[in-house]
Order: sequence, then structure tokens, then C-alpha cells
Amino acid sequence: MRKVAVIGVGNSKFGIRNDVNIAELAFEAVKPSLEDAKICAKDIEYVALGSAGAGAWYEELLPAVVAAEYCGLTKAGLLRCEAACASGSAAFQVAYSSIASGQAEIAMALGVEKMREIDTATAMEWIGRAGYYTWEFHNFGLTFPAYYALYANAHMAKFGTTEEDLALVAVKNHKYAAMNPIAHLQNKITVDDVLSSMVIASPLKLFDCCPMTDGAASIILASEEKVKELKIDTPIWVAGIGYSSGTANLSKRANYVGLEASVLASQKAYKAAGVTPNQIDFAEVHDCFTIAEILAYEDLGFCRKGEGMKLIREGQTEIGGKIPVNVDGGLKAKGHPIGATGCSMIYELTKQLREEAVEKGRQVPLKNYIGIAHNVGGTGHYCYVTILRR
Amino acid sequence: MRKVAVIGVGNSKFGIRNDVNIAELAFEAVKPSLEDAKICAKDIEYVALGSAGAGAWYEELLPAVVAAEYCGLTKAGLLRCEAACASGSAAFQVAYSSIASGQAEIAMALGVEKMREIDTATAMEWIGRAGYYTWEFHNFGLTFPAYYALYANAHMAKFGTTEEDLALVAVKNHKYAAMNPIAHLQNKITVDDVLSSMVIASPLKLFDCCPMTDGAASIILASEEKVKELKIDTPIWVAGIGYSSGTANLSKRANYVGLEASVLASQKAYKAAGVTPNQIDFAEVHDCFTIAEILAYEDLGFCRKGEGMKLIREGQTEIGGKIPVNVDGGLKAKGHPIGATGCSMIYELTKQLREEAVEKGRQVPLKNYIGIAHNVGGTGHYCYVTILRR
Repeated sequence: MRKVAVIGVGNSKFGIRNDVNIAELAFEAVKPSLEDAKICAKDIEYVALGSAGAGAWYEELLPAVVAAEYCGLTKAGLLRCEAACASGSAAFQVAYSSIASGQAEIAMALGVEKMREIDTATAMEWIGRAGYYTWEFHNFGLTFPAYYALYANAHMAKFGTTEEDLALVAVKNHKYAAMNPIAHLQNKITVDDVLSSMVIASPLKLFDCCPMTDGAASIILASEEKVKELKIDTPIWVAGIGYSSGTANLSKRANYVGLEASVLASQKAYKAAGVTPNQIDFAEVHDCFTIAEILAYEDLGFCRKGEGMKLIREGQTEIGGKIPVNVDGGLKAKGHPIGATGCSMIYELTKQLREEAVEKGRQVPLKNYIGIAHNVGGTGHYCYVTILRR
Repeated sequence: MRKVAVIGVGNSKFGIRNDVNIAELAFEAVKPSLEDAKICAKDIEYVALGSAGAGAWYEELLPAVVAAEYCGLTKAGLLRCEAACASGSAAFQVAYSSIASGQAEIAMALGVEKMREIDTATAMEWIGRAGYYTWEFHNFGLTFPAYYALYANAHMAKFGTTEEDLALVAVKNHKYAAMNPIAHLQNKITVDDVLSSMVIASPLKLFDCCPMTDGAASIILASEEKVKELKIDTPIWVAGIGYSSGTANLSKRANYVGLEASVLASQKAYKAAGVTPNQIDFAEVHDCFTIAEILAYEDLGFCRKGEGMKLIREGQTEIGGKIPVNVDGGLKAKGHPIGATGCSMIYELTKQLREEAVEKGRQVPLKNYIGIAHNVGGTGHYCYVTILRR
């Protein structure tokens, strides 16, 4: 397998971006990523675009084509990757494979999503289909907060996790988002703010849920030969990628206290990278709802099953703790533009591993120079775990 | 680069398949492909599903998850690939890369599409978006027959191609579809039938257009090591894949007498495979409209630009001719279930290269044991060319 490195990253401002169309939004990520890598658009041989809502929550049906043209990437190999909320990580894995397999020397993973062209109720209905349309959505009327509420209730009942524990996740992630200029929600919040916010699907309240966000992130990858040729200062190497998937029908899940796909994907990634969870310096995990971050602590092996709440209670997932998590604000507060999220996680990993988050006061201390990104599609319908190493 | 082979193929019956849902349709292709490869669903480590219409012309938003669960593929790495009408070939390239890169030993490319859940007019509107939504579709009202009519008119004006030439393509492809039990349209037609059929977008008439078809095709790929371990009788090797893309906005195309993306993708594929067009024994090309097959003859180098009509006039693209093309009926008559088409082309290539089409009377004579598949998304918005070799 050929070695592949991240050589350039870019991230648009996340938020309500009615000022741009899907191609213009992509450009805001592509341009800085090209400048970062010091290459031209024409150097990109293959583009995997991550986006889930084409024709659903935004109107362009071929966002990859439209974005590629606008960004000067036309003629490259091109496809759109969909793995629900893990579409960006799927695109990263596909772009990585194009180089690792020897088909390309320089490739791009470009995540982009516009969630705010339609009203939130309609968007929720669309997103609600991202389970099993016929069963969960159509017959039972479940939408995404309800899916994760099933997990929250089960975790609370079995392990004694509390609503306050969930709130602590939101408080932490808002704290870091307030220090991150690209974040969607930049307001600091308190546990009381979370607990007193509107109930969405008990026990999840408004501030337990990530916002509907527009955004884009672009990652440029290159082969080892190209890294040398381009004299890249600080290549960030892809150490290992793991992937797995879960049943569409939630009634077929063995339990609701963890995501099997996260466990399988992370084990695969650790094995591919030849590392163990305690060697990881920091993590980006999929906190679409606060409970999801606690499940991730456990599923990724940062603690034992049922003990995730201890990490957040003790501040172990803050900067200075055992394993800083989502210090960019996470999906919860940086925002969750579905197809962009996975690429934005890689953006953050790269910035941290290069120690370029210092000026923002968000730099994590690095010991092994290893970071991990965990991106879930649906409620574990898909999972991609990516380990990067400086 | 690791060597990768096709070791199992399956194809559902193409047609109007209101008798099955998307997962059941996928199963009709997956089951025979597993039997063909003599492996179990659990042996598949990675699944790339090609489908373009999720949430548009059929209602499941996560067809990959739903199909994977129904087919026993859950836990495999999973994503959906969209490259418009080339989605199946994109999925094939991605599944190939997962093995060529050393991430997986056995992978599946699964193309599936249901086009007939909604009425044809609505489907045409959705498909019409598969250009540049804002320009071609929304402002000018162009739909797909109109896009290709632009090309047909330009080709006729510049090179003297006639409506009869276009009709000959339809007649040939219907002839072979009538011999192919999985084909959607199994009626033989005459040039007069085509010329007297309803005008859709002049000069294209009803019988110049492919039908709206439901269908699925499944391809199982394996590494060279796995081919040996499984003692596969007749592995069909992936010799080379080429890809390219074109502008979303048709007004930016240099001309309308060929698809630049087809030229670039095929040149890349020939180079990767180390072969020239005259070494190819037979071809599957993207004949969504009759003019598209003539463009493909030229763009793939089977003849010079502007001379495609001579091949069809002389019968050179029939069995026994210089280069048999679409002897399974093509998109035109076998049918074009968008995301399945690319995989169905690989199905046909594999059957022909194994000399398993003999019993149907459709076997092409093989000299070099090399076949090519050419799959276009949109009007050259995407293009994938795949060369297989026995």
C-alpha cells in the first residue's frame, strides 16, 4: 500500500449561508486548500465530493459537477459519495484509495452541504428518511432526535448517565466553538441553559442537538512521491482508515447503549494504523447529539462501556485532560453540514497535528502526534474512522 | 498496484419492476453474484453501491444501507456512489480501489435503480436537473432528450449523419435485446418503426431514446491472492480504468459533436491497460440515445471523428463486424436503470470474456480477450471507461 498524506486543507465559514450557492460554498473551502498545498486546481486528478442532500435539502442534483466546474476542477475523475452524515469521511476514504491504489498522485476530498435552503421541519423530514424509510420513518414517524433519544434513554437506564452529563458535553463543545472563528454557534452556554431548553425528544433538549448548518471543507491528499516532489513542509500521513456499517432497521440492533459500527470501524482503523486508543492524542467524534459523544468515548475505547459520563464529568475530554475531544466545537456547536463534516474533522486534525491551532488558544498538547476522526452516518448505519499521524 | 479480478456477477431482470422494492431488486443481482463467485455475503468486506435517484425517483434515501441489510452485507464498509448515469461505473472504480489499495480482499460493486415508482414526466423533470439546475434546467427548461438532441443536430450538420443512421443503432440494439432474457425491451424493430415514432426532441424520436427501467447488477471483485485461494476458474482481470469529467454548463463545451470526457477517460483507460482501440474485441457503450452510441464509436477511437455513422451503416458494430457494440441490447433496449447500468456493462463484459454468452447466440468472437465498457453521466458531466481482460 502506497503512503498517502494530507498536504492541504480548507474550511468555509460554517453557519446559515444563504449568501452563497453550493458551488460558491465549495469554493470557499477549495481555494484555501489549494493555497495551503501550494498547487493549482489543474493538479488535482481525482475529486471525491461528499454530500448527502442533493435534490433533497438543496436543489442541485449533481453538486459534484457544478462544484468542480466552479472551482476549476473539471476533467478530473469525479464522483459524489453518500454515506449519510459520514459522506465526507467516505469521500476522504475514496480519495485516499485513488492514490493508495496507484491511480492518482494528487486527489481531493471535498465535503459540502447546504441544509438551510428549505425550512427546518422539511429538512427534518428528509433527514428522518435516513434510516429505513418504510419502517422507522414512514410507519413510526421517527426522526433523528428520536433515534438518538432511544440511545440516550437506554444508556441512562443501564449506566446511570444523567441529563446533566449530556448537558456537560454541550457546554464543553460550545466553549471551544466560541474560540473557533469558523464555528456556527459561537455562544458559550451553561448546564442550566441546556436543561431549561425546549424538549425535542426526551431526554434530548434543543441544546443537546447540533444545528442545521451550511458549510464546506476541502482536503488535498498526495502520494509520498508527490509529497517529496512538492517539498511539503509538514505532511500529515494517513495512518489507517476503518469502516463498517449497521442495520437500516433499528429493531435489529442488539442494544441501544453503543454503536456496533463505531466499535468495528475503530478497531479496524487502530489495526490498520498499528496503534491503540491510549496512544491517541486527541479526537474528533460524531456528536450530532450530546449522547452520541458519550457513546463515542466508549465505542472508540477511550474508556470502558458505561463509563463515558465519567470522562465528561472529570473534564478528561477538555484540553489538558486525558483525551481532548471536539475542541473545534464539534458537530454540536461548530455545526454539522452533513456531507462536509467528515472533511472538516480531517481539517481540524491536520491543523492540530501541524500545531496551527495555537493562535486560537485551542491547540491540544501532542505527545505521539496522532489524532483520530470518528464520523457516523445515520445512527451507525455507516461509520468511518480515520487516524492521522504527523 | 495490486491485481484485481472480477470473480462473480449477477444481473436482475430489467424492466418495470413494481413487484419489488429497492432492496429486493438489489437481492436479485447480489444472490447470483455470490453463487457465481462461490462465496457468502459475509465474505464481502466493502460494498460500493451505485445509485443516483435516492429520494428523487424512488423514496429510500439510504439505499446502500437498506440493500446491504436485506442482502446480508451489513458490517461491510459501505457507501453510495453517484456519478449520474455513470454511478454504477463509479461504484465499480471505488470497489476496485478498495482492493487495489490493499484495504480489502473482496469487495462488491452493486448498482441498483428504481425509475418507475413515479410517473415518467416527473422522472424526466428530476433527470433534467442532472445538468446545471440553475441554467439548463431551471432557466431554459432543457431535459435529457433535448441535451442529446443538441449533439445529434450538430453531428448531422457537421458530418452528414442522418436520422436513418440513428435509427440503425436502435434497430441493432433491439435485435440483440430480443436475444437477451434480462432485457427490458425485447421487441425487434425496423428503421421505419423508429422514423415514424413520436418526435421527442428533434431529431430524436421515441425509439431513439432508452426506456425508463428498473434493475440491478452486482459485481464481486477480489485480489490476486484471493483469486488463487478461492481457485476461481476464469478470473476476469481489471486491465485499466479511466475517468474524466466535463462542465456542468453545456454552453461552456467546445463543441457538440463529441464528449471530451469520453475521449479523456478512454485515453486514460487505454494507457492504464496498455492497449490500443484496435486490440479491443467488443464494447459496451453508453447509448442512452442513439446519437450517443455514434459519438462513442468516435470518442473511444473505433473510427475517426465524423465517421461513426459509417460503422453502423456497414454493420461493423454487429457480431461478426470489426467491433461488436452493445450486443446485450445496450441502454437503448436492455434498459437503463441509471445506477445499475455501469455494473450491468461489467456483467456483460464478464459473461462475454468467459464465453458464457454462447448459449444465447450473442457470443462475440474473441481474439485478444479484451472488452471495454464506456459509461457516461449526464452529457459527459462524468465519464468512466473500464477495460477488462481474461
